[in-house]
Amino acid sequence: VAAGVLRVAILSTGEELLRGAIADTNAQFLARTLRRAGGVAIEIRQVGDGREEIARAAGELARRCDLLVVTGGLGPTADDRTREALADAAGVGLKEDAAAAAGVAAFFRRLGREPSPSNRQQAFVPEGARVVPNPIGSAPGFELAIGPARAVALPGVPAEMKAMVNATLLPGLSAEPGALAQEERLLQVAGLAESVVGERIDAWLRRTEPPLVSVTVSAGHLTVAVTDRGDAEGRSRLAAAASELRRLLGAHVFAEGETTLAQHVVTRLRARGETVALAESCTGGLVGAALTDVPGSSQVFLEGCVTYSEAAKIRALNVPAALLAAHGAVSEEVARGMADGVRRRAGATWGVAVTGVAGPDGGSAAAPVGCVHLARAGANGVEHVRKQFPGDRGLVRAFAVTAALDLLRRGLD
Amino acid sequence: VAAGVLRVAILSTGEELLRGAIADTNAQFLARTLRRAGGVAIEIRQVGDGREEIARAAGELARRCDLLVVTGGLGPTADDRTREALADAAGVGLKEDAAAAAGVAAFFRRLGREPSPSNRQQAFVPEGARVVPNPIGSAPGFELAIGPARAVALPGVPAEMKAMVNATLLPGLSAEPGALAQEERLLQVAGLAESVVGERIDAWLRRTEPPLVSVTVSAGHLTVAVTDRGDAEGRSRLAAAASELRRLLGAHVFAEGETTLAQHVVTRLRARGETVALAESCTGGLVGAALTDVPGSSQVFLEGCVTYSEAAKIRALNVPAALLAAHGAVSEEVARGMADGVRRRAGATWGVAVTGVAGPDGGSAAAPVGCVHLARAGANGVEHVRKQFPGDRGLVRAFAVTAALDLLRRGLD
Repeated sequence: VAAGVLRVAILSTGEELLRGAIADTNAQFLARTLRRAGGVAIEIRQVGDGREEIARAAGELARRCDLLVVTGGLGPTADDRTREALADAAGVGLKEDAAAAAGVAAFFRRLGREPSPSNRQQAFVPEGARVVPNPIGSAPGFELAIGPARAVALPGVPAEMKAMVNATLLPGLSAEPGALAQEERLLQVAGLAESVVGERIDAWLRRTEPPLVSVTVSAGHLTVAVTDRGDAEGRSRLAAAASELRRLLGAHVFAEGETTLAQHVVTRLRARGETVALAESCTGGLVGAALTDVPGSSQVFLEGCVTYSEAAKIRALNVPAALLAAHGAVSEEVARGMADGVRRRAGATWGVAVTGVAGPDGGSAAAPVGCVHLARAGANGVEHVRKQFPGDRGLVRAFAVTAALDLLRRGLD
Repeated sequence: VAAGVLRVAILSTGEELLRGAIADTNAQFLARTLRRAGGVAIEIRQVGDGREEIARAAGELARRCDLLVVTGGLGPTADDRTREALADAAGVGLKEDAAAAAGVAAFFRRLGREPSPSNRQQAFVPEGARVVPNPIGSAPGFELAIGPARAVALPGVPAEMKAMVNATLLPGLSAEPGALAQEERLLQVAGLAESVVGERIDAWLRRTEPPLVSVTVSAGHLTVAVTDRGDAEGRSRLAAAASELRRLLGAHVFAEGETTLAQHVVTRLRARGETVALAESCTGGLVGAALTDVPGSSQVFLEGCVTYSEAAKIRALNVPAALLAAHGAVSEEVARGMADGVRRRAGATWGVAVTGVAGPDGGSAAAPVGCVHLARAGANGVEHVRKQFPGDRGLVRAFAVTAALDLLRRGLD
């Protein structure tokens, strides 16, 4: 993290996190939201409900960051110990706060209920803390100094936490010393292996000064993220970096910004006034599910055929039985026949077909586990690619979905 | 954490975690899986890709725990620095490992590709480390001592990490000093709202002594987990608790143990020698994708029709145009027609149909956003249910998949 940047640390508390009962989506929301607003997360931690462990983690993180956000442990029950723990970390005691007491009372008035004695515990905050109102639930938050850091404690209930971040934490954030909104450019890449991407942009990935480049990978879909400061100098560096990265990655970059391959394909089809039909075997409906995940896809996606059995391939797609017998269901010939068959059947501009061996069983010498044939039929004929994917059944299927959508989009660009 | 317990710490690396691009589901899986095997997570951390930050976090955690599991940063690119960082934390250098090199070479041989120079970097591990084979991907893991702790480094790709945990980490774990296996029983529930489940088993959820009960929820599918110690006394308490919980939840419990609704349906269909065909509208292929996620589903799943357009519903499923015109595509009548049509078309024992409004657009007074009609056609006629689901497009679709599979399984039990 460059000097002068507003360093953020996030501490999530709760035994349910350590038991693995839930994933820490609160921390993800905070990291993403605070980054856009000008902070940079340097570390995220999950600890349990214990007073000592929360106090120790808060103390350690407060020495490393400018802003520490703590979630959870503000409820009324005996295992809610964040108030005491942050008081310990700040070296102060607890006191009853009039604003917090009024907030708790108002919450129960709205519900038409009486606060219990344990709810009244929620009006206690560390000495010197300022109360952060909770517009939704009974647990007020608070903020106080822990060493050099500003610490903010918020409830663990996601809706309450988010409402309080938006109402109280974000508005003042850009005025914090060092807060500098980060600008981010995302290049979406398909059709190149991770190692090849890594080699092509190696020097960029090794940078330790802005613009910083990172790559995230999801079954054949790579997102190259470039970040830099949100001021004029940063933006200009960012534009130059994005343009050079696009050059290095070529036509494998299918889009810029926050988008998916399915969204891009739907957008392109709509812009061209074209339609698609799908014939899926090993993906079992996943390509259709990806396309129809995009609102408005009904205008371009006419029909999908999940032809898992050979009989279905023959009857629904007019794939000749002799072709299946001669080449096997997982073959270039059958993939071409399926793409052409579903295109004609649905009267679509494009027909896309996937047939492969997802495993764990069913592999052969000609078509081992991970072998997937893909075809795209259009007005100018049928394109085919054969892929050999690594991984288990789920991963092979996920790779096949990306490859099918990528094959289609290369006909649309 | 009680004395003598096997203390586990989890360190997840990757800028994408600090940017909030993804939630740390790897840590959740590890916490849950290692807990079952006898360890207790005491802390989870996410840090970025930097060599120094990973080394510092690993060193701090190694002083607090018996077993440290580090994920991510083992890939071939320049921002994969976990090998160097853990070597730093252990105070050793890197060396090329023959077993790791052989693993990388074998991975690329299986794919029929040549490893690139950067892939060969993956064969370097800290001195004194033992290589953990990667049965799926190119990145081998390794384990080494960092201070008093045993540290294990695994790839961040979830499928690879999970396969390596199951193959290498879990088998020896119960022999570690302090490991005390927890026994867990899982009741899988569908067809009951979370709040109703919560009320029925309220007293169980409030327990603070074993057996402990928790509920996780995923779009209409609930998993009730009961845990207790793995000794004779714990097991006997667990059996009594599971039996009482089954009684409270009744026929909504569709299975016990680690299974999904789709797995259960495929198992039941196979046992009965029956088959199914699907007609999907708003789910766009997700029900087929769920069924075909189960190895061996090809024996029972004959065909799926994703009939997104009205024309497809008419042509593929023989739904009369007059029925569509009279009742609209999202209606009981059309759902029944689709289920019956796809059953006849595929010659299957069962036909299951889903038609609904996933949103955000397309709602009407008769069929608002979230309204889904489901039908199951069989030898004894057609069953229908209408559901009104909360949430955004993705959640409505996920709820609809659960409801479709639940409707089918109620015909099979």
